[in-house]
Amino acid sequence: REPAAPSVVTAIPGPTHKALFDDLNQIQVAAVNLFADYEKSIGNYLVDVDGNTFLDVFTQISSIPIGYNHPDVLKAVADPKNAAIFANRPALGMFPGGEWPHLLRSVLLSVAPRGLTEVTTMACGTCSIENALKCAMIQYRNKQRGTTTPDPEDMKSCMVNEPPGSPQLSILSFHGAFHGRTFGALSCTHSKPIHKVDIPAFQWPIANYPRYKYPLASNQRDNAAEDERCLAQIEDILTSLKGTKKEVAGILVEPIQSEGGDHHGSPKFLQGLRDITTKHGVGLIVDEVQTGGGVTGTMWCIDQLNLSTPPDLLTFSKKMLTGGFYNTHAFRPNGTFRIFNTWMGDPGKLVLLRAVLDVIKRDNVLENVRKVGKKFVSGLTELENHFPTKVNSARGRGFLCAINFSSAELCCKAHAALLKKGIHVGMCGEVTLRFRPTLIFDEHHLEILLHHLHATVSEL
Amino acid sequence: REPAAPSVVTAIPGPTHKALFDDLNQIQVAAVNLFADYEKSIGNYLVDVDGNTFLDVFTQISSIPIGYNHPDVLKAVADPKNAAIFANRPALGMFPGGEWPHLLRSVLLSVAPRGLTEVTTMACGTCSIENALKCAMIQYRNKQRGTTTPDPEDMKSCMVNEPPGSPQLSILSFHGAFHGRTFGALSCTHSKPIHKVDIPAFQWPIANYPRYKYPLASNQRDNAAEDERCLAQIEDILTSLKGTKKEVAGILVEPIQSEGGDHHGSPKFLQGLRDITTKHGVGLIVDEVQTGGGVTGTMWCIDQLNLSTPPDLLTFSKKMLTGGFYNTHAFRPNGTFRIFNTWMGDPGKLVLLRAVLDVIKRDNVLENVRKVGKKFVSGLTELENHFPTKVNSARGRGFLCAINFSSAELCCKAHAALLKKGIHVGMCGEVTLRFRPTLIFDEHHLEILLHHLHATVSEL
Ligand code: FES
Repeated sequence: REPAAPSVVTAIPGPTHKALFDDLNQIQVAAVNLFADYEKSIGNYLVDVDGNTFLDVFTQISSIPIGYNHPDVLKAVADPKNAAIFANRPALGMFPGGEWPHLLRSVLLSVAPRGLTEVTTMACGTCSIENALKCAMIQYRNKQRGTTTPDPEDMKSCMVNEPPGSPQLSILSFHGAFHGRTFGALSCTHSKPIHKVDIPAFQWPIANYPRYKYPLASNQRDNAAEDERCLAQIEDILTSLKGTKKEVAGILVEPIQSEGGDHHGSPKFLQGLRDITTKHGVGLIVDEVQTGGGVTGTMWCIDQLNLSTPPDLLTFSKKMLTGGFYNTHAFRPNGTFRIFNTWMGDPGKLVLLRAVLDVIKRDNVLENVRKVGKKFVSGLTELENHFPTKVNSARGRGFLCAINFSSAELCCKAHAALLKKGIHVGMCGEVTLRFRPTLIFDEHHLEILLHHLHATVSEL
Repeated sequence: REPAAPSVVTAIPGPTHKALFDDLNQIQVAAVNLFADYEKSIGNYLVDVDGNTFLDVFTQISSIPIGYNHPDVLKAVADPKNAAIFANRPALGMFPGGEWPHLLRSVLLSVAPRGLTEVTTMACGTCSIENALKCAMIQYRNKQRGTTTPDPEDMKSCMVNEPPGSPQLSILSFHGAFHGRTFGALSCTHSKPIHKVDIPAFQWPIANYPRYKYPLASNQRDNAAEDERCLAQIEDILTSLKGTKKEVAGILVEPIQSEGGDHHGSPKFLQGLRDITTKHGVGLIVDEVQTGGGVTGTMWCIDQLNLSTPPDLLTFSKKMLTGGFYNTHAFRPNGTFRIFNTWMGDPGKLVLLRAVLDVIKRDNVLENVRKVGKKFVSGLTELENHFPTKVNSARGRGFLCAINFSSAELCCKAHAALLKKGIHVGMCGEVTLRFRPTLIFDEHHLEILLHHLHATVSEL
């Protein structure tokens, strides 16, 4: 049973935390915010090692779908029928268990975005991105060559990292984007210098992602112009790089730039992007690692964006518990062992995800996200109306909600003050508090959060 | 209980396999060799969905340390004390459980290579490599700058993938190497074209890895010259690239090139590499993803190579169940959030690894690897002496054993014929059968393997 309210009983961080932090910091660079007690954490509440109980509105960087120690997840963990899956992690690409095709169909494909009929699992969001980029590259090269078979010159030159086998093609990404931190994904990430500095990058092109004025209702004309400006720039880049060493093979985009500051892309912007990529024969890879899994009120954010045709590839992880990507049949890589690694994901995570999706369907959880999500944005808007000099730009889709502060300093102060009141939220971008509750966050939790937010902002 | 011997009761692949394969192939590119029954698989025996029982000498691409359904691993899975760890995967970098520092120390650091006092977990071998490369880059830039603090110009330029913030530095890797398939790791991988073709790569330098003549005992002079030739080339590359856009920040090397064809590096070669990297102030990253975890008869292959000082970074995965890297204190990245991602590994895998390491210590498992490993190489050498026109270059360290065939075709034939006899081995490089048994493979299993190998080669 969840507690009735958060409770903070020590200084933050507490004494047990401090001792553990010092210990950990001797053997790696410790960046720990708090050490948790996962046996005691429950539902929307995260309990730390010092006995403090936080209402968790950040949920492990948005990766806990239906709360801590959900009984259905615990049941899946304890079920002896699943023991062999947890104990014997296979190389899924070569020797999956006999249940694997059915697991993929009944779990991942049961919630596939419209038109994306194929799925490949990966172990995290980053390799999902890297492999989706590879699929886009393969597809583009096949088209350039006019055949799916690389020629001998390709096969030879790629072995020494030289073109044409290692082609001089690029992925277009966006200022403010975050897609992960391995070398390919990091070359598409542009949210914070600390992610990128000192690490070599592909010199791939970068476009502007729309920056809207809020409230949206009273800034429609400016925001529509912003969409058009960004789309025009993107089309310019595609055209001007054609035939150069940076020719664009794919565009990688988040429907909402999450780490970068919760910058929403309008349906019109994403629709335009789909149409431009179709027109220029460039792959469209939608990164739903943070926006997917139900947090926006539908399984996928693009379910609400009414694209003319589905994206070519869509990546997921976090709330989905397993990484992976969906793709259209057209973007299926030709041939085996082109998209491959040792583990190719982890079937144990699909067993847990099955339990999660069963709960989501049975308990109509996404309806909760939509309903409470509306009140969430209203509550933030009210806060903004109350304290217009301190906070602004309240926004959200489902539970993926955020509000900006008038300065980075104020934002950090609010974050720390909330923690002392037992409210654990996240930050993103420079001046933004982001809210990432579980999907079972209800009106009662929202009231607690809004109450403490009001108090905190008024005290700033 | 393990069966007494392998048994094949259907055609390979069997009818159930075929139906599952067709089903899977509709929703992704299927490369499945066999669909397994992981409830029935036990110890060194892998049972497939058609009821065939294979002696498994490939073990999920060398990633199952102590056999299928080991009672101690099953006990860890079923232990209610571990349930909260399996059910609530944290963002380990920010909110680990209170037990995390102790788990790192008592599990991973208890088997750390000499001199590597720090450890960071990752979720797979590939991100272990990518992040170790990043540590080497950060370290090198710190030295270049003379300070660990990136300057404003670095912070600004990196956001758009430009130098100096995104530095023009390289990692030196080797022909025949395999380090993974994300963009950074793949730029260091040079084993097979199908891994690389159509994917852009960093144009980083590549050196020769020694290719020895076997048997080693009768080719000492040639092999010593080969070591010297390779080391001289490496030093040439470091010197000639200094001050260019490809200046080398680190060397990435496997002590035995595994995917590339089980090419062993001699102690002298690896010692030379350590000395050259020290001399030139370049990071040495040893990739023990495949050679680590006990398969060579010691926890790490480098334990047997007598380097003058430890490598700067050492990566692991596969048999270690979790990915990650060890590093010296000197190579600790300065500052938080430079080496980071959402999950930073998975504590559930450490719980399983704890069980595995307890068994390894309790049952003196590495002594078994060393003892049976010697007979393994002797057995392969005998085979070579029997059939010198068909097989050659028998070699091994502990259980990491291999033999070459006189042609790729013969090698494939042997692989398929063995499978029909219920012996499941791997291939690597072009002409090589590689053997990757569990660490609890005993003399009895070895006899069965050698018996069928003899029969197979004689029938070729
Ligand atoms: S890169 Fe995704 S798990 Fe390693």
